[in-house]
Amino acid sequence: MVNVELLQAPAAVECCAPPARQALAADGAEKLAKTLKAIADPARLRLISMVAAHDDAEACVCDLTEPLGLSQPTVSHHLKVLVDAGILSRDKRGTWAYYRLVPGALDALAQSVVTV
Amino acid sequence: MVNVELLQAPAAVECCAPPARQALAADGAEKLAKTLKAIADPARLRLISMVAAHDDAEACVCDLTEPLGLSQPTVSHHLKVLVDAGILSRDKRGTWAYYRLVPGALDALAQSVVTV
Repeated sequence: MVNVELLQAPAAVECCAPPARQALAADGAEKLAKTLKAIADPARLRLISMVAAHDDAEACVCDLTEPLGLSQPTVSHHLKVLVDAGILSRDKRGTWAYYRLVPGALDALAQSVVTV
Repeated sequence: MVNVELLQAPAAVECCAPPARQALAADGAEKLAKTLKAIADPARLRLISMVAAHDDAEACVCDLTEPLGLSQPTVSHHLKVLVDAGILSRDKRGTWAYYRLVPGALDALAQSVVTV
């Protein structure tokens, strides 16, 4: 049998004054940590930076490999991590994939860091 | 025999127009990645958040252990990583260590993310 009183109890409990600022909850922390991990890598930071610095803020994977001194599969892996994290977008045109910064993605991440 | 022409060649080469925005150099990327790695962890993000939300923005390690559900040595380890990264400062008073956010540290990190 379901105990209705127990199910309703949490809403009625007022044990503590609310803190001046709400601390980050576990699920929010997991999500933010995941995105931060995606960019917390020297090669990936340089890829983001190179894409942003490129003409039209768009870069072909073929332009990103040589300056980093990494193999194309390694660069493609790093780019995939950044796409999966919502930092870069990918557009396949013909032989090559082209990458752009997702508008506002870095700003939103920076805002999350400041208000953690 | 050393080929002087080859050694001098790179300075004379002008192959490309400079990029509109300067891409992040390798050493800058290493340094930023290291600081981002320090905060790219759910427990450490929650610790930063709990310290910031605490009365007077200062928290004793004794107040941080129970809400996280981690052992005190584990929490102390995470706090040390954050102190070493320049995010928190530590003040030992009597039995306990007290932690504060380093003023401006998160703002500076956020700024680095936006201008990567």
